[in-house]
Amino acid sequence: MPNKLLLVASENKKLERIVTKSKLTRPIVQRYVAGTTLAEALDVTEQLNSVGIDVSLDLLGESVHDLKQSEAATAEYIRVIEGMAPRSASATVSVKLSQLGIVISSESCEKNLRRLLEAARAHGCEVEVDMEHSSVGRETLEIFRRSHAEYPETRVAIQACMRSTFQDLYEFGDNPPKIRLVKGAFDEKVDVAILDRDDVTAQYQHFAKWALANLPDPAFGTHDDACIETVKQTARELGIDKRAFEFQMLQGVRRELQEQLVREGYRVRVYLPYGTEWYPYLTRRMAEKPANLLLFLRSVVGS
Amino acid sequence: MPNKLLLVASENKKLERIVTKSKLTRPIVQRYVAGTTLAEALDVTEQLNSVGIDVSLDLLGESVHDLKQSEAATAEYIRVIEGMAPRSASATVSVKLSQLGIVISSESCEKNLRRLLEAARAHGCEVEVDMEHSSVGRETLEIFRRSHAEYPETRVAIQACMRSTFQDLYEFGDNPPKIRLVKGAFDEKVDVAILDRDDVTAQYQHFAKWALANLPDPAFGTHDDACIETVKQTARELGIDKRAFEFQMLQGVRRELQEQLVREGYRVRVYLPYGTEWYPYLTRRMAEKPANLLLFLRSVVGS
Repeated sequence: MPNKLLLVASENKKLERIVTKSKLTRPIVQRYVAGTTLAEALDVTEQLNSVGIDVSLDLLGESVHDLKQSEAATAEYIRVIEGMAPRSASATVSVKLSQLGIVISSESCEKNLRRLLEAARAHGCEVEVDMEHSSVGRETLEIFRRSHAEYPETRVAIQACMRSTFQDLYEFGDNPPKIRLVKGAFDEKVDVAILDRDDVTAQYQHFAKWALANLPDPAFGTHDDACIETVKQTARELGIDKRAFEFQMLQGVRRELQEQLVREGYRVRVYLPYGTEWYPYLTRRMAEKPANLLLFLRSVVGS
Repeated sequence: MPNKLLLVASENKKLERIVTKSKLTRPIVQRYVAGTTLAEALDVTEQLNSVGIDVSLDLLGESVHDLKQSEAATAEYIRVIEGMAPRSASATVSVKLSQLGIVISSESCEKNLRRLLEAARAHGCEVEVDMEHSSVGRETLEIFRRSHAEYPETRVAIQACMRSTFQDLYEFGDNPPKIRLVKGAFDEKVDVAILDRDDVTAQYQHFAKWALANLPDPAFGTHDDACIETVKQTARELGIDKRAFEFQMLQGVRRELQEQLVREGYRVRVYLPYGTEWYPYLTRRMAEKPANLLLFLRSVVGS
C-alpha cells in the first residue's frame, strides 16, 4: 500500500531532525498542517467552519516515552478542548493513545484518556481515538473498549486493511461504537493486514456497506472516489439520511471535493493537525501520495 | 487465485462433452475420483480407513435445473448414506445445495436438505454442506443456518477468501457451526472476495487461528504447508488436543502428507468424489494445480 521507504523514514529520528530543520519542507508543511500553535489551528478551524466543513483537531506528536510527557500531552489536549469548544460547536479532537503513554503504561494511558473524555464531555465536544500501528493497535482498541460503555459518544478509527477488523467490531456485541473507517496507513505485515492495494479498496467498500447498515453515525475517512461513491450509493439504497454519517478527509487533500460534498448536503470533517512534531505525520502522508514524494525528497537532499 | 481460463472452462458444456468422452483424461480422473459407482467409492473408503484416514463422500454433479433431478440427487444421497453407514463409522457425506435444487427453488432445496439430514442422523452419520460460487453462496448459508439449530452436527464449508466470512460466522451468535475452512476455489470478483494469492493464504491463517479458538470441532481443508503449520502451532499454543479438529484434503492430492499427519496423531479426512459428472469438479482441481494443466490440455486437444 503506502510507500515503504517513507514509512521506514517516518520512524528515523536522525532524518526527522534534518528534515524538520529544512526550510524546503515549508510549503508541504503549510499545506498539510494548520500551524504550530493552537491559536493558528483555531483560525483555520473557523475558516473551514465558514464553508460548512467540520474539523477534528490533532495535536501532532506520537510515541511519548515517559510518564511526564504523556501527562503533558493530556494537559495540552485539555487546553485544546477548552480553547476549541467556544470557537467551534462541531469540532472534535483526535488523539493517539501513544501520545497518552500507551507504550509506557496501559493503566496510566487509560487514566489520561478518561481525563480527556471527561473534559470533552464537560465542554460538550467529542473525542476520536486514532488508530496506530498494529504493535499498539490491539491495546488501543482494548482501552477504547473499556471506556466505550461510559463514553459512547467517542469515535474510534478502524482500518479496513486489518484482518481482525470484523472480529474487533463484532466483539462490541449489541453496542457497537462510532467508527472512522480508514484504509490503513501503517507498514503492516501480511499476517495481520491485507496488503494488495485493490483488495484494500474493495475491503473498504465492503466494510463501508456493512458499517452503514450496522453501526451508529459512521465516519468514512477516505479520499478515494470509488469508496466515496460506494458510501453515497449504499446510503441511498438503504434510505439513510445524508446527515446520518460523515466523510472525513485530511487537511490539504482534495479541498474541492470536500466543498462539493458539503454542497451536495453531506457532512464533511477535515482532520486538522497542528504543532511542531509534524515529521512522522507528514512522511505517512507522503507515503500515501507519491506525487508529493519528489518535493519531499528534494527537501531532504537540499538540506 | 485459481487459473481463470479453467474456471471458465469448468462451466462450458460443449467442452465438458468433448473432455468427458476423451480417453486421455482417464489417468487424471482415476487419480482424483473414486470411481463411477457407489460400490467403487466404498471400496476406496475402506482402503483409506485401513490407513487411518476418514472420508467424506461426494456424489459428483452440480447445478441441477429441474425439481425431478434435485429429488433424484437427494434420493441418491440417501442411498449413499445407507450404503456407507455400515461400511465406515466415521464417514460423512458432502453435498452441494445446487445439486439439491437451490437454483430452482430455495424451499424445495431446503426440504431436500432436511430429508438428507434426517436420513444421516437415522444412520448415525454426518453431512457436510459444500460452499459454491457466491451467486448461490449466501442462499446456501441461509438454508444451512435455518437447519443448524436442529442439526448442529452438520458442517458447512467457509471460504477464507470471501470478504463476508467473518460476518457470516458472527451472525450465528453464541451457537457457531462446525466449519470446514477452505481458501476458496471459485472465480469471484474483487468486491466479494480477496483475490491476491498471498493475501488469501494469510487470511486463511488468520481465520484458522480464530476458528481454533472460537469454533467447535473445526476442519481445515487445505494442502498448503504454511496453513497446516499454522493450525498445528496454534493448537499447541492454545492447548487444543490433536483430535479436537481435523485436516481435510482432496482424494489424489498429497497422499503422503495425509498419512504423515495420521502418524503424527491428527485426524485426516479425504474428500472423495465419485460418479460420472466429474468434469466441473476436475477442471476446478486443475485450475488450482497448474502442474496438471498440461496433461489436462493435452487430453482436450487430443480428443
